[in-house]
Amino acid sequence: MLYDLIIIGGGPAGLTAAIYSARKKLNFKVLAQRVGGEQLFVAGKIENYPGIKEISSGMEFINFLKEHLKKYNVDIEEGQEVVKIEKKDKNFLIKTQSGPEYEAKAVIIASGKRPRKLEAPGGKEFEGKGISYCAICDSPIFKNKEVAVIGGGNTGLDSAMDLTKYAKKIYVLEFGPRIFGDEATQEKLRKTGKVEFITLAQTKEIKGERFVTSLIYEDRKTGEEKELKVQGVFVNIGSVASAEFAKGFLELNQANEIVINHKTNQTSVEGVFAAGDVTDVPWKQIVIASGEGSKAALSASRYLQKLYDSKR
Amino acid sequence: MLYDLIIIGGGPAGLTAAIYSARKKLNFKVLAQRVGGEQLFVAGKIENYPGIKEISSGMEFINFLKEHLKKYNVDIEEGQEVVKIEKKDKNFLIKTQSGPEYEAKAVIIASGKRPRKLEAPGGKEFEGKGISYCAICDSPIFKNKEVAVIGGGNTGLDSAMDLTKYAKKIYVLEFGPRIFGDEATQEKLRKTGKVEFITLAQTKEIKGERFVTSLIYEDRKTGEEKELKVQGVFVNIGSVASAEFAKGFLELNQANEIVINHKTNQTSVEGVFAAGDVTDVPWKQIVIASGEGSKAALSASRYLQKLYDSKR
Repeated sequence: MLYDLIIIGGGPAGLTAAIYSARKKLNFKVLAQRVGGEQLFVAGKIENYPGIKEISSGMEFINFLKEHLKKYNVDIEEGQEVVKIEKKDKNFLIKTQSGPEYEAKAVIIASGKRPRKLEAPGGKEFEGKGISYCAICDSPIFKNKEVAVIGGGNTGLDSAMDLTKYAKKIYVLEFGPRIFGDEATQEKLRKTGKVEFITLAQTKEIKGERFVTSLIYEDRKTGEEKELKVQGVFVNIGSVASAEFAKGFLELNQANEIVINHKTNQTSVEGVFAAGDVTDVPWKQIVIASGEGSKAALSASRYLQKLYDSKR
Repeated sequence: MLYDLIIIGGGPAGLTAAIYSARKKLNFKVLAQRVGGEQLFVAGKIENYPGIKEISSGMEFINFLKEHLKKYNVDIEEGQEVVKIEKKDKNFLIKTQSGPEYEAKAVIIASGKRPRKLEAPGGKEFEGKGISYCAICDSPIFKNKEVAVIGGGNTGLDSAMDLTKYAKKIYVLEFGPRIFGDEATQEKLRKTGKVEFITLAQTKEIKGERFVTSLIYEDRKTGEEKELKVQGVFVNIGSVASAEFAKGFLELNQANEIVINHKTNQTSVEGVFAAGDVTDVPWKQIVIASGEGSKAALSASRYLQKLYDSKR
């Protein structure tokens, strides 16, 4: 079957593109590893999605999106990991891990991003043994324990926020000279009296026996190595775009993000659009990804209309 | 008082920028003609704002946004029309119709757009006497009457949709060869049996005595002039960006929209950002304007941070 459009990704960008494509009555399919997207699954409270004052968790927002999608007859194939995209005559061929291939006249890539892994010694060894990438999943394990959060961006602060409910002491380590997550969250964290911010800190090693027992970092101001006795380490040092399958086919930037025309969401290949966190949009936010998904769908729809018009 | 940031506009773009600026703890003020924005005030049912399955009216969405803003201490000055923006030393000076001037280190312009007026003879004469720019406001007046909607885009279709509840017959006139509003809405309209689509139609004149009695259009295929006996005419022929106050100061495109770097929302003047329908973003949608508002606020916040860092 030849589709008008294949949307790769089931997060806010992909699902918004689906809503708009359904309204345009396109013949399309969504290929998603998980409806909602990997990031929303582990996201905590959302307070900055305009129009919804407070969303208790990423999971709740996923349910809102699923509810919204029910309005339309959207064909979503879950559990599908895309491994390759290539040109096939005038169309595009999309290959998946599990075998099925899909052909379409246009494509929207909205495959998002995933957490960057800690590369310091012990990082791999103690993953799941005190090292976690998901505070919302694993915070309760650290009741009355001391923990470190690596990363002073918004994700790191959100992790720290989750941890304040359980841990007795939380160190937030930031490589740069300043905690750059939202001031509002910083203030809330300070008020708990449990959180210590450490800037100019480079994590050198995670030590432990069966489980994590401490974190070694270098104080980048003095060059001195310091040890924090912690039983948990939450890693929030940014993320990697999930765009490997497009390598060699589309232009990517140094961070491996898909380079787009930010006005139209067109990639370096005509007929292939991209939206959300997988692109080189500088800010990774739900409402931005949603807006971009809408833009990409409207651009794809216009592209398809031109194709049909030219065939008349 | 010198602000970090002035946000001009109280629609989805401006209010999302406000939410993000509040979270960044910026010292800022919003200047709005009306909180919610002119367009939301007259908008009908909203079905394409991801995460909220159905919003009964623009007014309801405004209330959601107001509720959301209550979480933060946002300083909004309502009833303020900006008439000029200019440079003052390193800052920006914003002048309003009613007198007060505001000075800020950075500015986000999110002043939106307003409907384009019908220029055919009778267009001005019968405004408010059968000619309306707001179906959601004026539909009930046309109970059991025959009406014309000028414009086959989404706004035109939405007007027609509102009118189906009251009017007995609705003509939708489109200048181009095709109705380009959402297929889903077109289908709903067809199902009512009340709506007739007329493409390649150029409105020539609105006739009437005290009130509208007919509409004359040219069939652009045959060149023939035709008359529709209608008592109401709803005009949805696009819109004009509300950017007059920035003329000569910022680069505008031919449609008088503010030209932005679509990646950062920076205008042609450093420190001045723009977001939403007032910009040259090709698609005018609530979720797009919201995403753009978020991008503009995050860019402005980064710009301000750099300013402070350079002064240290």
